[in-house]
Amino acid sequence: MKATAIAHTNIALIKYWGKRDENLILPANSSLSITLDKFYTETSVEWMEDAKNDLFSLNGQIKQDAKVAQFLKILRAELDIPYFAKIDSVNHVPTAAGLASSASAFAALAVAGSAALGRQDDLANLSRLARRGSGSAARSLFGGLSIWEKGSRLDGLDSYAVPFNSPLTEKMAVVVAVVSDAEKAVSSRDGMKSTVLTSPFFHEWIQTAEEDLRNIKSAFLSGKFVEVGEILEHNAMKMHATTLGAKPPFTYFSPASLTVMDEVRKLRDEGIPAYFTMDAGPNVKIICLRENEKMVSSRMQKLVKDVYICHAGEGAKVIQVD
Amino acid sequence: MKATAIAHTNIALIKYWGKRDENLILPANSSLSITLDKFYTETSVEWMEDAKNDLFSLNGQIKQDAKVAQFLKILRAELDIPYFAKIDSVNHVPTAAGLASSASAFAALAVAGSAALGRQDDLANLSRLARRGSGSAARSLFGGLSIWEKGSRLDGLDSYAVPFNSPLTEKMAVVVAVVSDAEKAVSSRDGMKSTVLTSPFFHEWIQTAEEDLRNIKSAFLSGKFVEVGEILEHNAMKMHATTLGAKPPFTYFSPASLTVMDEVRKLRDEGIPAYFTMDAGPNVKIICLRENEKMVSSRMQKLVKDVYICHAGEGAKVIQVD
Repeated sequence: MKATAIAHTNIALIKYWGKRDENLILPANSSLSITLDKFYTETSVEWMEDAKNDLFSLNGQIKQDAKVAQFLKILRAELDIPYFAKIDSVNHVPTAAGLASSASAFAALAVAGSAALGRQDDLANLSRLARRGSGSAARSLFGGLSIWEKGSRLDGLDSYAVPFNSPLTEKMAVVVAVVSDAEKAVSSRDGMKSTVLTSPFFHEWIQTAEEDLRNIKSAFLSGKFVEVGEILEHNAMKMHATTLGAKPPFTYFSPASLTVMDEVRKLRDEGIPAYFTMDAGPNVKIICLRENEKMVSSRMQKLVKDVYICHAGEGAKVIQVD
Repeated sequence: MKATAIAHTNIALIKYWGKRDENLILPANSSLSITLDKFYTETSVEWMEDAKNDLFSLNGQIKQDAKVAQFLKILRAELDIPYFAKIDSVNHVPTAAGLASSASAFAALAVAGSAALGRQDDLANLSRLARRGSGSAARSLFGGLSIWEKGSRLDGLDSYAVPFNSPLTEKMAVVVAVVSDAEKAVSSRDGMKSTVLTSPFFHEWIQTAEEDLRNIKSAFLSGKFVEVGEILEHNAMKMHATTLGAKPPFTYFSPASLTVMDEVRKLRDEGIPAYFTMDAGPNVKIICLRENEKMVSSRMQKLVKDVYICHAGEGAKVIQVD
C-alpha cells in the first residue's frame, strides 16, 4: 500500500484565472500550459491500516497543511478507502525559483495515492483528482503541452486536462526570471476570488480567454511561434488587467517585473522572438525558441539574480511501488 | 484685435479615456478633474488683417505644430473670421514636471483668441471650443473641480465642462511625483484610439466610469475624502487595465511608478489618507489632504527626483486686451 510518484510544475500560456465552483475547483475558462523539465515534486504515499491520523512531511519536516489535509479527505472519498496516510514529499522546486509548487505537489500526491492501492487509474481520472487539490495540478499530469478543459457539468466530471501536441513543443524554451522569492501579498486563490466577485473586466476576460485558446491551438498546430507568442503575452496581460479592475485594485506586477518585460520588448525590437507571461506573483517567464535561450537568459541575468532555462518536461509518473 | 489669457493644467480624478468622435473630440464618458494652481500657460493671440499665415511661438521660439495649426482653422470657423493670427505662448509647466500642457495650452488659446475679437463668450462656449484642441482642455476653463459632460449630440454642442463645488476642494492637495520627463512612448491620443478599437475591456471601462462619476460627486458633496480617494484610485487603475487588454498590450506604468504607488499604499497603512492616479505617462499624482501634504511630499522625495505640491487653481481668464 505504498507508492512513489513524481510530477513536474507547469506554466500556463493561456491562464486559468477565476473559478466557476470554489469547492470543486472548477474553472471559468479552459487553460493551456507547458510542463517544465527543471522543477518537480517527488511524493510517496503509504496508506496505513492502523494509523489514526494523516502524517505529512515536506522536505523531511513534519508539516500541518490545511490544503493537504483537505485533499487527503477528498482522496479517501474518491478512492473509497478508510485509511489514513503517511506522506513524504520532496519539492525539487528551489525556493529561489519563486514558482508555485502546488501544481506538481498535488499531481504527484494524486498519482502516488492511487498507485499505492495498486490501481491503474486512467490519466483523465487522475487529472480530475489532482484538480481537487489545486486547479493547475490537473495539467501537470501530462508532459509537453496540456489543456485543462473547463467542462460544463456541475459535478466537474468533464473538467480535466488532456495532452496537446505541437511541432513547437520541443523547439521552445521557458526562461524563468526570478524577481523575488518572497511570499506573494495576495495568494492566487484570494486574488482570483476577489477578481471574480469585483472586477468589471472578469466577464470579458473569460470570453476572450476562450478565443485565445482556440487561436493558440491553431498557431501551435501550424508551428507559428510568433503567433503563439503574441497570443500568450496578450492573454497574460489581460489576466493582470482584471486585477487592476478589482475593488480594491491590486497588481502582481513589481517594479522589476516591468523592467524584465521592457527588456523582452527590446529583444523583440532586435529581432529575437521572445514573449513574456506572468502568474500570481512578480516573476516573469519568457517564452522563446531554444536557439535563442542562452541569449535571452544572459540578458535577463543582468537584471535579476536567478534565471532558469527550462524545456518541456515529462508527465507525472509512478517511480516505485512497494 | 489682441488679447492675452492664462489657463491652468488639470488632473482628472475620473479619467477621460476614449473618444466617441475622433474629429470633434467627443468623449465616450464624462470626466472630473481638479485644476492645479502651480502650472499654467499664458498665451496672447493677435488676429492680423493682412497676415498670410499663422505664426506660432512657444516659449519664445517659432514652432510648427500640427495640432495648433488645425485648432486655428477651427477657431477661425467657429469665431467666423477670415484672419490669420500671431500667437505667443509661454508654458509655465516646467518640462521636468512631465505633465501634459495641452489642456492649459488650448484653454488659454481659445480664451485669448475669442477675447481678441472683443467677445464676451460664455464659459460653456469657450469650454466647447477648447475641447476641439485637446479634450482635457475643456476642463481647464474652470477653477477647482470641473466636470466635462460627455453629452449625447452628434454635433458635440452639449459636450463641455461645468464647475463643481465641494467642501473638500480647498482642503485637498495634489502631490506630483515626477518619475520621468521623457516623452511618452505611446501618446494619449494613440493610446486611447488603440484601446477603443482593440481592448475587450473598453465597454466595461466606460460603463463603470459613469458609475464612478456619480459616486465621486456624491462623496465630494458630502465631504468624504476617503471615499473620494478610493473611487479615484480605482478609476485610474481601471483606465490602465484597458491598455493591458489592447492588442498589442501596452502600459504607461514604469518600474518607478509602481514604487511610488507602493509607497502610497504604505502611507495608507500608516493611517495617512492618500490615493494615487496616473495618466498616459509614468508620473504619479497623489491626492491627499493639505494637512498631510508635506509628509507625503517628503516621502516621495526619497523615491523620485522632482516633487511638486499643488492646490486647486483658478479658472482660465483674460489678463490683457490691447
